[in-house]
Amino acid sequence: MMKRTVLATAVALVSGFAIHTAAVAAAGEPIQPIKPPASINIGMVELGKKLYFDPRLSKSGIMSCNTCHNLSMGGTDNIPTSVGDKWQQGPINAPTVLNSSLNLAQFWDGRAADLKAQAGGPIANPGEMAFTHTLAINVLESIPAYVREFKMVFGKDKIDIDQVTTAIAEFEKTLVTPNSRFDQWLLGKKDALTKQEQEGYALFKDSGCVACHNGEAVGGNSFQKMGIVEPYKGNMPDGRAAVTGKDEDRFNFKVPTLRNVELTYPYFHDGAANTLTEAVDVMGRLQLGRKFTKEENAKIVAFLKTLTGDQPTFTLPILPPSSDATPRPTPFK
Amino acid sequence: MMKRTVLATAVALVSGFAIHTAAVAAAGEPIQPIKPPASINIGMVELGKKLYFDPRLSKSGIMSCNTCHNLSMGGTDNIPTSVGDKWQQGPINAPTVLNSSLNLAQFWDGRAADLKAQAGGPIANPGEMAFTHTLAINVLESIPAYVREFKMVFGKDKIDIDQVTTAIAEFEKTLVTPNSRFDQWLLGKKDALTKQEQEGYALFKDSGCVACHNGEAVGGNSFQKMGIVEPYKGNMPDGRAAVTGKDEDRFNFKVPTLRNVELTYPYFHDGAANTLTEAVDVMGRLQLGRKFTKEENAKIVAFLKTLTGDQPTFTLPILPPSSDATPRPTPFK
Repeated sequence: MMKRTVLATAVALVSGFAIHTAAVAAAGEPIQPIKPPASINIGMVELGKKLYFDPRLSKSGIMSCNTCHNLSMGGTDNIPTSVGDKWQQGPINAPTVLNSSLNLAQFWDGRAADLKAQAGGPIANPGEMAFTHTLAINVLESIPAYVREFKMVFGKDKIDIDQVTTAIAEFEKTLVTPNSRFDQWLLGKKDALTKQEQEGYALFKDSGCVACHNGEAVGGNSFQKMGIVEPYKGNMPDGRAAVTGKDEDRFNFKVPTLRNVELTYPYFHDGAANTLTEAVDVMGRLQLGRKFTKEENAKIVAFLKTLTGDQPTFTLPILPPSSDATPRPTPFK
Repeated sequence: MMKRTVLATAVALVSGFAIHTAAVAAAGEPIQPIKPPASINIGMVELGKKLYFDPRLSKSGIMSCNTCHNLSMGGTDNIPTSVGDKWQQGPINAPTVLNSSLNLAQFWDGRAADLKAQAGGPIANPGEMAFTHTLAINVLESIPAYVREFKMVFGKDKIDIDQVTTAIAEFEKTLVTPNSRFDQWLLGKKDALTKQEQEGYALFKDSGCVACHNGEAVGGNSFQKMGIVEPYKGNMPDGRAAVTGKDEDRFNFKVPTLRNVELTYPYFHDGAANTLTEAVDVMGRLQLGRKFTKEENAKIVAFLKTLTGDQPTFTLPILPPSSDATPRPTPFK
C-alpha cells in the first residue's frame, strides 16, 4: 500500500506543478530516468566502436560483438540462444548491450565485474568467437591504421588486450537509451503516458515487480532466484552458483534490465518466452504467485513498451583494411 | 603504343591547363571517374537500407545482406568463400556490393540481370540465407512499422518480394565510391598521384590490364576467361557457361571491379590470392603472359590502391521490432 500511496502522491504533484515536480516525481519513484554518461573519452569511443564491429576479432572473420549484440535490434540477436563459431548453439540468451553499463556485473551469472572484463570473454570463448587474445592482438598489430589509432588513444607503442577491452567498454558506455516515454513522464511530461500505461505502471509496482526491476535500468542491480514461488520449467543452468560455488545461489541470475524490453525478445535466460504477454504471465506466477488477468497483463505490457528509449545512433564505422601481413581468418578450419 | 601516346598527351595537357584539361584527361582515359547516382528515391533507399541490414530475411535470424557484403569492410566479407546457414561453405568469393550498380550483370557468372534480380537470390538460396520469399514476406507483413513504410514507399496494401528487392536495389545504387585519389587525378588534381602511382597506371595500361579492367568501375563490364595464356590452378567452376550452356563460356567470369580493391581481399573467384601483389602476379602470367618484375608489380599495386574511394557513410539503421505475430527464426532446426 505504501507504494500505491507514493504513486498517488507523485501523480497529484505532477498534475499540480508540471516542471518543478518532475524531479520530485522521479525522486519518489522506484524507477529513475536514464542519465546519459557524463564523462566519455571520445577518441576511445570511436576506436571501441570500430572494434565492436570488427569481425577480425573472431577466428572465422565473420563474427563481431555486433553479431550477437546487434545495435540495429535492441543490442541483442533476437534468437533464444546465440549462434557461435561453426554454428555452435550458445548455452544462454544473449543479454542486451544497451544500458549494460548500469548492471552491477556482466553476464547472466555476473562472472564479469564490469564491461571491460566482459568484453574479452566472447572473443576467446571457443563456442562464440573462438579466437584467442594473442591472435586478436596479432591481427590488430598488423593493421597500420589500428596501430596509429591505438597509439593516439592510449599513447603506447604496443597494442594489448587491456586496451582493446577498455576501448570496447568505453564505446558500450555510450549505449544508453534515454528519453523513453516513461522517462519523459518521470521527468514531468504528464501526458507522455496513456491511462492504460499509467495503470500498468501502478500494477507493476503494487504487485511487486519493482522489488527486482527497479532503479535506472529497471533491473540489472541484483541477483534473484528464477522460480521463487514455482520452479521454472525450462532449461535451468546453475546461474550465480557457478560463480560463487554457494548452493543458495543456484538458479540465481542477474535480473535483466527491462529498458527497451519491447526490442529484446525472446525473454528469460533461455529465451523461451517469445512475447511480453507470455513473459509477464510466467513472471507473475513463478516469482510473485500471482496470475494476472488478461486485462492486467495487457496493462503491464503497455507500460513495459513505454520503456523503449532513443536508440544509439551513429555512423556505421568503416574498418581499416588488413595488410599483407595480417593473419587471415580461418572459418572452415 | 597508342595507349602510351594517349597517356603522354594527357599528362602534358594536365600539366599545362589544370582545370580545363581535366575533362579531356578523363575523356581520353580508359578509366572514367565514378559519378554519384543522379536519380534516387530517398524513401525507397531508407527502406532498402533497413532490409539490407535485417537478419529476419534469413531462416536463422542472424544473416543479412550485410553479413557477406559488409559495408564496414569494402562491401565484402574478406574471406575466400562465405559462410552460409548452418556454417555451409559457399562455392565462390562474395563480390563487393560497392559500385555493383555499374556491373553489366550480377554474380560472377552474370546469372542475374541487375541488382533487383540479384537481391532475391541469397535470401532463398539454401546454402546462404536459406529462407523462402514467402516466409520473408510473412515476416515483413507481421511487423507493423514495415507495413506502414512499404505502404508509404510503394503505395500498395500488400508487401511482395518485388517491392523488397526493388528497395534493396535502390539502396545499393547509392553504394558508389567517388572521390578516390585516382578520380581526383582524372578530374584534374595533378598532384593527387605520386610518380610511382602514375607509373603504375601507365604500366597497367601498356601491359594490357585495361583491356578488361576499364570504364567507370575498372571492370564489371564484360565476361572474360580466367586463364587465357596459362590455365588457372585453383578451384574452377564452369562460370558463365553455367548460364549460357555454351562450351566457349567455360571458365568465363564477370571481370571484377577494381574499385576499392585494397579493401576487397582475398582476390579471384575462389579468393585464393591473399594480397594484391599475388593477384597482380597471377593475372600478369595467366592473362597477359607477362611476368612483372618486383618493381613493376609494386608500381601497379601502388596504382590500384589509389582506386579506394569515399566509402558510403550513413547512420546504422534501427530496425522495427517484430510483433507477437512475427514468425520466429529457426537457427537450429
